[in-house]
Amino acid sequence: MINENYLNLSESYLFTEIARKVNAFKKRYPKADIVSLGIGDVTQPLCPAVVEALHKAADEMAVAATFRGYGPERGYDFLREAIVENDFYRHGIDIDADEVFVSDGAKSDTGNFQELLATDCVVAVTDPVYPVYVDSNLMAGRKIVKLPCTAGNGFVPELPAGHVDVIYLCYPNNPTGTTLTRDQLKTWVDYALETGALILYDAAYEAFIRSTDVPHSIYEIPGAKACAVEFHSFSKTAGFTGIRCGYTVVPKELPAQLNSLWNRRQSTKFNGTSYLSQRAAEAVYSPEGREQIAATIDYYMWNADTMREALTDMGFKVYGGQDAPYLWVGTPNGMSSWDFFEWMLHSAHVVCTPGMGFGDQGEGFVRLTAFGTHENSEKALRRIAMKTP
Amino acid sequence: MINENYLNLSESYLFTEIARKVNAFKKRYPKADIVSLGIGDVTQPLCPAVVEALHKAADEMAVAATFRGYGPERGYDFLREAIVENDFYRHGIDIDADEVFVSDGAKSDTGNFQELLATDCVVAVTDPVYPVYVDSNLMAGRKIVKLPCTAGNGFVPELPAGHVDVIYLCYPNNPTGTTLTRDQLKTWVDYALETGALILYDAAYEAFIRSTDVPHSIYEIPGAKACAVEFHSFSKTAGFTGIRCGYTVVPKELPAQLNSLWNRRQSTKFNGTSYLSQRAAEAVYSPEGREQIAATIDYYMWNADTMREALTDMGFKVYGGQDAPYLWVGTPNGMSSWDFFEWMLHSAHVVCTPGMGFGDQGEGFVRLTAFGTHENSEKALRRIAMKTP
Repeated sequence: MINENYLNLSESYLFTEIARKVNAFKKRYPKADIVSLGIGDVTQPLCPAVVEALHKAADEMAVAATFRGYGPERGYDFLREAIVENDFYRHGIDIDADEVFVSDGAKSDTGNFQELLATDCVVAVTDPVYPVYVDSNLMAGRKIVKLPCTAGNGFVPELPAGHVDVIYLCYPNNPTGTTLTRDQLKTWVDYALETGALILYDAAYEAFIRSTDVPHSIYEIPGAKACAVEFHSFSKTAGFTGIRCGYTVVPKELPAQLNSLWNRRQSTKFNGTSYLSQRAAEAVYSPEGREQIAATIDYYMWNADTMREALTDMGFKVYGGQDAPYLWVGTPNGMSSWDFFEWMLHSAHVVCTPGMGFGDQGEGFVRLTAFGTHENSEKALRRIAMKTP
Repeated sequence: MINENYLNLSESYLFTEIARKVNAFKKRYPKADIVSLGIGDVTQPLCPAVVEALHKAADEMAVAATFRGYGPERGYDFLREAIVENDFYRHGIDIDADEVFVSDGAKSDTGNFQELLATDCVVAVTDPVYPVYVDSNLMAGRKIVKLPCTAGNGFVPELPAGHVDVIYLCYPNNPTGTTLTRDQLKTWVDYALETGALILYDAAYEAFIRSTDVPHSIYEIPGAKACAVEFHSFSKTAGFTGIRCGYTVVPKELPAQLNSLWNRRQSTKFNGTSYLSQRAAEAVYSPEGREQIAATIDYYMWNADTMREALTDMGFKVYGGQDAPYLWVGTPNGMSSWDFFEWMLHSAHVVCTPGMGFGDQGEGFVRLTAFGTHENSEKALRRIAMKTP
């Protein structure tokens, strides 16, 4: 009676597994002052413009005249219009508001989008990779092809050798924190247009891009609207990990009426995102919101810079962290990534994410996030410096 | 490349289709004063206890010390504990907090749960039925068996003639507004235990039950924890249609480790419900919240009583509406349900839901909801009385 594809999964979702190990440690050493640079969760509070929008929306819900029940499954117009205006038109990209689907977060959308695909599709993912792409496709019984991203190829995957139907790309990358230049991304768009493959492009970290030759959206590349879906998140951009809001762009130019199919999927199995969360997301695009959020992103990137420099000075091989809130750090002395995770937890009381959790090519690396407080990031660095094996 | 099961679906989700027709009518007659008794959306504002909780949670998110990022995928302990205490222990039912999974609503959960099942499972649903159960299973390519619920059998389905693996039951029923007594539900639990079938029990409307012999939870029936999953919603109970929160009970006694599998599904493709929504849901269980919510439910049931009496007096055959916010109304003079929908819209400017939208056995009926304001419910009744064909 059961979907047996679940038996092909590792026993638990990576971050659930890490939380379990950390909780066991905390239980054993309740006084340990643990610094978490593991899961990519933010620490800075919501910005004032967003908090004000939440209060205003709560007040509207308290009065019959302004109360809102079910919203449109694809999101309120006010938010979808703010998105196309600010995230696309402003950058010269023409996306229609009907191509934008607001959701409770990019994790749901990147996990659910594969439902529109046939089960015999061949799916390509990078290795290392955000586990959701792999697990959601394994649950559906699809075959997965891995594209290695190593220090050797600069973490830029090579085009697949054989036929693939779907390619997940995430840039700025989770977990490596590395990017593709506009030219490098163009190679992929051209390949997809040529072979008929569909690109599922995860742009959750685009707000952290500082280099000018790194695209913020795949739609900066000509032709991408005919071959790519793009996922966005307010989680990292605006600290919405606890608020839950993201969006997905499904262009009407895509083959097989994917825009209509995704609408059918969402209107059948989803009932819209909290009105408060949508008003909060709208406030991200207000002049005050934009300014306040930029300051928080600068704060996290200050962490990234500090960490990159300090770890490099300590002799670690460090990648990423220039246009992304993640650092991809080589383990010392050929230690395995899980061993280094354990060492970091027990010796430095720092939580990182073992690279192996993201795929075989993650062996020999751990991921550190820049989402801590600056004090904690520095504290973690001091401890690692003192204890490094 | 596409999941071809989508081609087996009707073109659009029922309520999307109704919204389309109503919007076209509004465009043509912008001055028409339309009363919607169609989609089951609430009209009364959030109660003060809930609004207070939303404000408090928004303030917590504004300060680093109390800011919350990602919550547990299965929901915060404070909410899961309030749920087991109030919805189960209080009624003598022993459910563990680890058997409760908080989500963004029962529509998502009833739509997603089928992912855990093999594609060759035979799924039974009542006819008429909430379309999500059918569409989500059609999308996955499953075979569906329909169990007719007619005036003839008192809207109580008969046990399946052939083998089925899964049975969706929704009581109080959407759309008919009818119920099962404790004895009638026991027949289903016994059947499931005997045959190894799984019951997916949708209890979204349990807060509207007034009769003492109607169970609020399937777990009131001995043995149900070994054969049934139960879905709950705050949408109708507490007016959360725009706030988004619900929960699903997946007992550990269920076969095939369904509790673990659902946890794996949720932690892979879902990232928890908004912290604000969860605090709001917690407030539903406070003494003030319980009292305020009971008053709103009484208000809606006053509508249901008024509508049932008036429509019966007009000569309509009316079912449901005693322990549920829905009335299942026979169309006059053998009119089809879509014709009566069109007539109601054009002649009375009242939106109802055509029974055919819920399945073939819905022909000859429309569903009316008691979720309007009392003034609008009475206005609709006056217009229907004046215009009845």
